[in-house]
Amino acid sequence: MTPSHDNRWVRTVTLSRPSLGDNTADADRLEAALNKTLGTRIVHMDPDLLKQLPDRLRQWDFRATTVLFKNDDDAGILVHLTAPDAVEALCGLAVDLGTTRVVLRIIDLSTGEHLGESVFDNPQIAVGPDVLARIHHVETPGGLHRLNRLIIEGINNQLRRLCSRCSTSPERIHLVSIAGNTAMTHLLMGLNPRWMIREPYIPVVNRPGVVRTAELGLDVHPSARALIFPNVGSYFGGDLIAGILFCDMDRREETAILVDVGTNAEVVLGNRNWMMACAGAAGPALEGGVTRMGTTAGPGVIDRIGIDPVSMAIDIHTIEDQPPRGICGSGVIDLAAALFRSAMIDIRGKLIPERCGDRFKIKDGLAHLTIVPAGQSANGKDLGITQADLDSLIRSKAAMYTILETITGSVGMQQHELGTFFVAGTFGAYIDPLSAITIGMIPDLPIERYHSLGNSSLGGATRVLEDSGCFDRVNRIRDGITYMELNVNQDFMNRFSAAKFLPHTDTSRFPSVPLPASGSKST
Amino acid sequence: MTPSHDNRWVRTVTLSRPSLGDNTADADRLEAALNKTLGTRIVHMDPDLLKQLPDRLRQWDFRATTVLFKNDDDAGILVHLTAPDAVEALCGLAVDLGTTRVVLRIIDLSTGEHLGESVFDNPQIAVGPDVLARIHHVETPGGLHRLNRLIIEGINNQLRRLCSRCSTSPERIHLVSIAGNTAMTHLLMGLNPRWMIREPYIPVVNRPGVVRTAELGLDVHPSARALIFPNVGSYFGGDLIAGILFCDMDRREETAILVDVGTNAEVVLGNRNWMMACAGAAGPALEGGVTRMGTTAGPGVIDRIGIDPVSMAIDIHTIEDQPPRGICGSGVIDLAAALFRSAMIDIRGKLIPERCGDRFKIKDGLAHLTIVPAGQSANGKDLGITQADLDSLIRSKAAMYTILETITGSVGMQQHELGTFFVAGTFGAYIDPLSAITIGMIPDLPIERYHSLGNSSLGGATRVLEDSGCFDRVNRIRDGITYMELNVNQDFMNRFSAAKFLPHTDTSRFPSVPLPASGSKST
Repeated sequence: MTPSHDNRWVRTVTLSRPSLGDNTADADRLEAALNKTLGTRIVHMDPDLLKQLPDRLRQWDFRATTVLFKNDDDAGILVHLTAPDAVEALCGLAVDLGTTRVVLRIIDLSTGEHLGESVFDNPQIAVGPDVLARIHHVETPGGLHRLNRLIIEGINNQLRRLCSRCSTSPERIHLVSIAGNTAMTHLLMGLNPRWMIREPYIPVVNRPGVVRTAELGLDVHPSARALIFPNVGSYFGGDLIAGILFCDMDRREETAILVDVGTNAEVVLGNRNWMMACAGAAGPALEGGVTRMGTTAGPGVIDRIGIDPVSMAIDIHTIEDQPPRGICGSGVIDLAAALFRSAMIDIRGKLIPERCGDRFKIKDGLAHLTIVPAGQSANGKDLGITQADLDSLIRSKAAMYTILETITGSVGMQQHELGTFFVAGTFGAYIDPLSAITIGMIPDLPIERYHSLGNSSLGGATRVLEDSGCFDRVNRIRDGITYMELNVNQDFMNRFSAAKFLPHTDTSRFPSVPLPASGSKST
Repeated sequence: MTPSHDNRWVRTVTLSRPSLGDNTADADRLEAALNKTLGTRIVHMDPDLLKQLPDRLRQWDFRATTVLFKNDDDAGILVHLTAPDAVEALCGLAVDLGTTRVVLRIIDLSTGEHLGESVFDNPQIAVGPDVLARIHHVETPGGLHRLNRLIIEGINNQLRRLCSRCSTSPERIHLVSIAGNTAMTHLLMGLNPRWMIREPYIPVVNRPGVVRTAELGLDVHPSARALIFPNVGSYFGGDLIAGILFCDMDRREETAILVDVGTNAEVVLGNRNWMMACAGAAGPALEGGVTRMGTTAGPGVIDRIGIDPVSMAIDIHTIEDQPPRGICGSGVIDLAAALFRSAMIDIRGKLIPERCGDRFKIKDGLAHLTIVPAGQSANGKDLGITQADLDSLIRSKAAMYTILETITGSVGMQQHELGTFFVAGTFGAYIDPLSAITIGMIPDLPIERYHSLGNSSLGGATRVLEDSGCFDRVNRIRDGITYMELNVNQDFMNRFSAAKFLPHTDTSRFPSVPLPASGSKST
């Protein structure tokens, strides 16, 4: 959906001309024109802009090109003022503030054109690989300041390079929108996230709103403003709100579900009338349960696996077709599905030695399946999977399925009633839904109902800069979400236990998954 | 009217305690408490305050004393946060930003107590004595910057001294409110007022609203905010809006009039339902007409004059009882009234030589009346008044009366229907209404309807800091004023001509003023 030109933040306005019969102030004259075009009641102007106003308006014959933004309270903010015939691009910066990776995207605010994109590792990794490690680092002297400087300087440095690649400059960036999880948002703002990881898990702020980029320390235009996406709580952040905006869940009549598996598994279910959310960091039973699978994707990592049903030959695809050196999450899911289809594992995910042939070994007392023999792998060693890896996958998929079952059940829905199943992020981009269905990780929906959103956090951050109509939706989405604490009670554990079979104890839930020929439990 | 404690900007709030069932963010928790007490929908918090929030709230057991303010858009602003049992005073600064004199007043925001006051000459006088001269100075290189620095540094310097006298410090000032005329407000904000003196007389801004004091350059608490009173136009400024607030015209059922004679004569007429305003700087016919009378008040200046009806002896009072060295405006009005009552001037204000006796002289071809003979004056010279001075007074009083007649007439009112006649500023503080009625400068109302407001600009600026309920009234007053351009047309000139007699051509308008015994025109 391309937003109409009327929805741009850049507007060229024509003011009424001063006369004895219409002798209101320059600022009022501009405000009246802006209120008309923006539908606001009031427009704030910084002192620096006011200072330029009288001479500029007269020089430009009472026309001006403006860059606008809004505040949480429905007030407009005049961010920049330039000649009505100015030729330089007026830019915006969308930021996906990931724990692992940060993506910057520059867009032309007048046309919506994407001018360039840049991905870099979150420099806070040097201090701690994950959210928890970083929050612990905050407790050391100077820790918060260090983490804050790392990400701010990281963005500033990367932005300079990106701008020069796009033939623009950071000074030309007038609007910024930033979507990240709650902890990353706190560290970006220099807010102490320590209470987020202690019961009852309290963030400093849920709705940071629109802030001055100068106050954040971002090297863009000095009058620029940044929208920091709001979060619902410590475990449901602005990246998810951006995802909901991006997939338009808040505007759809039919009920959809959005699943984002990043550091945690976060799920939101809803439609234009209601939204229900939960996050997988719900308790120790699920700690890391969904995500600790396989190797981080990169060259040589196996991302696709199939097993020929006749020859039982394993067919692999590696990223960039490099010699294989590991298996990433999507590869592990593909592998488990293929092993199950070819009856090399049983419905509990246990390797069946007689079906695995000479690929099966016992090493250090642990069952092991060779995928790539030493001679063909990148490091000259056998590349395979252990029973422990498979057990871990079973727990992960069971946790995922249980969360989905719990959230749909909480609103009295059956999973097959889901109109659309959006999968966000890397997880969504790489997994094969058929494989995930085969192992019972996600519901047995017709495959066309699955939609991979790609980077929906970046997508949502971009939408706000492209389309002024999206601004108000951000807070409406946040305020409209009912967050459900995942109570890891006996009911939950019963559902979890039932989901620890392939595809599920209740096979009637997965009619499309053929039971393997020798589908009996091994002993 | 003492505002109730509920209306203070300082509030001590108790927050709900975090729990698993109530795990919203610290900022949301504080905002909810503030919204309840302040009646706002949203409260903005600066990043610096957010950074302190989590530790402070826990240290203070989820109670806090806050300094709040509002924005034009009904949003609250959290300006300061301190311990619930803090003992240091939280202060506000009210500023009467006069062209000639500036008054600072420090108040305790918690109690409303006035801690101290300081008056100083506007340092911009060094550049130009009046508004017009200063606006012309803006056109010289660096002129705007110079004028801006003069007033900002003037306030900062004076404030430091005042604070040390009040045993407080500028750092403890969290709220500022500033009332001045439109030109002074522009210079304070560094805005170029050049278009205000050129047809069609356009200011840069009419509603500066709430600004960060740091952006103005005021040395107070770095997070402090300043309300700059709005103006209606180039010739009706925030000082008058403050005056209307101070006399509660916007809340009164009966119609009142407020007259402020400073650099110009500004008049506003109205009640809780409507307000009509005009300013005396309406055209060349009245240029300086109301105000160019007598010497600036100071020690030795005659401020009261009477003439004994029997002995015809002139009785004077000087400021601080010093030897006489001049006559100020109120003295000139007293003198004219006394001369008229004792028939020493005729109804045109012309000296009647035979009634003046040996006080009358012709010097350099100009009729002259001695008030204080050389031997008794401060400089050893005769102190008196010329026919030209009296002619000027007659034009002044006629202009004043004509403006009052015009504005009441514009709403179909008779002057005697005015319930209350408020007189602001020095003019109001010193003139004797009986004298002013005698010469027909102001309407012949019962004397108890006249109220001198004193420094109503400072008073209004103070009210906003004392009483949060006054904040919204400021903009409502501004928006509710209908500004009437004084058209100096034939009708106006006819009324002006009729008012050039003592007390008026139509003596029936001044029933309380006895016509003098020899009330015939001299020839």
